[in-house]
Amino acid sequence: MAFSYYIQANCSHTKARAGIFTTPHGTVETPRFMPVGTLATVKGITPRQLKDAAAQMILANTYHLHLQPGEDIVESAGGLHKFMAWEQPILTDSGGFQVFSLSELRKISEEGVTFRSPRDGRIINMTPEHSIKIQNALGADVIMAFDECPPADASKAEVAAATERTYRWLKRCISAHQKPEKQALFGIVQGGIYLDLRSQSVADLVALDLPGYAIGGVSVGEKPELINATVQHTAPLLPADKPRYLMGVGTYREMVQAIASGVDLFDCVIPTRFGRHGTALVNGERINIKNAQYKRDYKPLDETCPCYACQNFSRSYLNHLVKSREMLGYILLSLHNITELIRFTQKIRTAILKDNFMVEFGNWLSKS
Amino acid sequence: MAFSYYIQANCSHTKARAGIFTTPHGTVETPRFMPVGTLATVKGITPRQLKDAAAQMILANTYHLHLQPGEDIVESAGGLHKFMAWEQPILTDSGGFQVFSLSELRKISEEGVTFRSPRDGRIINMTPEHSIKIQNALGADVIMAFDECPPADASKAEVAAATERTYRWLKRCISAHQKPEKQALFGIVQGGIYLDLRSQSVADLVALDLPGYAIGGVSVGEKPELINATVQHTAPLLPADKPRYLMGVGTYREMVQAIASGVDLFDCVIPTRFGRHGTALVNGERINIKNAQYKRDYKPLDETCPCYACQNFSRSYLNHLVKSREMLGYILLSLHNITELIRFTQKIRTAILKDNFMVEFGNWLSKS
Ligand SMILES: [Zn+2]
Ligand SMILES: [Zn+2]
Repeated sequence: MAFSYYIQANCSHTKARAGIFTTPHGTVETPRFMPVGTLATVKGITPRQLKDAAAQMILANTYHLHLQPGEDIVESAGGLHKFMAWEQPILTDSGGFQVFSLSELRKISEEGVTFRSPRDGRIINMTPEHSIKIQNALGADVIMAFDECPPADASKAEVAAATERTYRWLKRCISAHQKPEKQALFGIVQGGIYLDLRSQSVADLVALDLPGYAIGGVSVGEKPELINATVQHTAPLLPADKPRYLMGVGTYREMVQAIASGVDLFDCVIPTRFGRHGTALVNGERINIKNAQYKRDYKPLDETCPCYACQNFSRSYLNHLVKSREMLGYILLSLHNITELIRFTQKIRTAILKDNFMVEFGNWLSKS
Repeated sequence: MAFSYYIQANCSHTKARAGIFTTPHGTVETPRFMPVGTLATVKGITPRQLKDAAAQMILANTYHLHLQPGEDIVESAGGLHKFMAWEQPILTDSGGFQVFSLSELRKISEEGVTFRSPRDGRIINMTPEHSIKIQNALGADVIMAFDECPPADASKAEVAAATERTYRWLKRCISAHQKPEKQALFGIVQGGIYLDLRSQSVADLVALDLPGYAIGGVSVGEKPELINATVQHTAPLLPADKPRYLMGVGTYREMVQAIASGVDLFDCVIPTRFGRHGTALVNGERINIKNAQYKRDYKPLDETCPCYACQNFSRSYLNHLVKSREMLGYILLSLHNITELIRFTQKIRTAILKDNFMVEFGNWLSKS
């Protein structure tokens, strides 16, 4: 079988675990942060640089790639791996979140979602079947079910309805999926901040025996303490022998808390978005490299960081580049930020393997 | 002596030559195209990528670096090489051309030029002494004399006056230069399209026995045939045992023509500027990668090109990136274009070494 998840170590004090997720394009050592390459490129970063940053699985987006260049072009190129020259694992998001959050003129029905393309104005029907068909054409190792994402201010009844529809859509995704031996379809737990809805969603999904599970609808605008409460409740309900992916979360504290609840995989656009705004993640803090204090700071961003930016350039140089709006500034900051978040999850993984997670990372678990 | 120029081969049919220019930071094999890194960065390209593109000497700009970050910051960093992590040779332009072309509120006198900084509005006096002081602080291997660049529509009398002033300023540059053992000061031949003024300028400069000579005031708006006529007249007048640099020129035909007249070094912003506009240089032609014909073109830009872009990505992917305004598109096109122009001069060099220049490149010498 092309996919497997093997647990190497369980933490004695928390639900944290270290494992290896095997895919047709190689393994992912968990816990692990996954960089986001929405349009088949992690913004400003070459695949070679991504590999040097120790990236293993990266993300791309069904919604964006359907609009541009279109999945037929990617498929004719030989699939997403070849198209973007990334030989390691790729996960495609289903487009559900983007259809609900980015597009205008949405009409939602049991069939699916109709929306107007922000690119060329044409009307697009996105259904579970359509999303899976696109993802089959793109050819990522992990594909995601098409789900309905209710807004953060939705009522419990609305969230319940969306969660039930997401489940019905999941069954349609499974039926539509043409390449289960090459692409693992992950289901997405919904239920908002309502723990009973989360429990029901997990029970429904687990009965379908999927190769992996994601926790969706988290970090969509709710209070931070509710994020942790939701994950703490939901993750342990999922089968231990399958990978668990918390969608759209990638801050230090939220990752440590989720790992302590048994989550394995994370993604977030923060490292490149921060990079493009001149912000570096250093030792758990954000620093704005444009600040005058870095003008004559000839130290690297982080002396302990193995990334190309830290090994070769000073804060002073980065300050100069970002103040000059030079592309290389954004590139180097993004590269550092990606390296930093991956390295953070690598350190956690090493700690779990030594059963040292609570000693080294317990401080992150106190209430922020 | 830290600087030398050694001729390895002379073409039997033209004045082309292949040589090695030695500097404190290594050698430059000539003829050679030099990428431009105005603000201490070749736009969007890391030093590692530049090295892979076979860059040897690169440029930076005195005017821009004086305004941002200021030469004191670069000097405190340990000099330009360390600041920008480029261990091979660097040349700094004097800022003359930029002061005359970019700044507002210029006042020109025998002393120098007064202008208002476009960055922060402060009034800056740039004199030959000031330019050299800045360049001494930056620490490039080759520094350029501060010259007066008359506009392309200047009268012969105006060009003559500017050329004579440039010569008086050159003598002040030589007196001001504090590090002749570490930094080679090149004089700049002026004289516009007036061949008698060019001859006089060369005679004046050569009498000062400089470590290298540049031909300035070319490709500033005059007719293309006058560029070649000027270079054809001027280059052979310069001492054979010193490197010759044609400033601001870097198109295929102009480089071949200038090489046939004995020029060794070139610089131009074209490869990165074109890259940022979606244009690739392929086999002497410009292709606009956004054109619909490349949407499904799965070949690399140039199958014979060793660059990272051509070795890993298709025209289809580059079309997708540029249409999506993704930074990686500009990066990969710039990287290819730089590689292409350097490789073009490398091929010419190899041909000269085999005395095969006219056979392989003679077609470029016909009137365009
Ligand atoms: Zn770093
Ligand atoms: Zn190339």
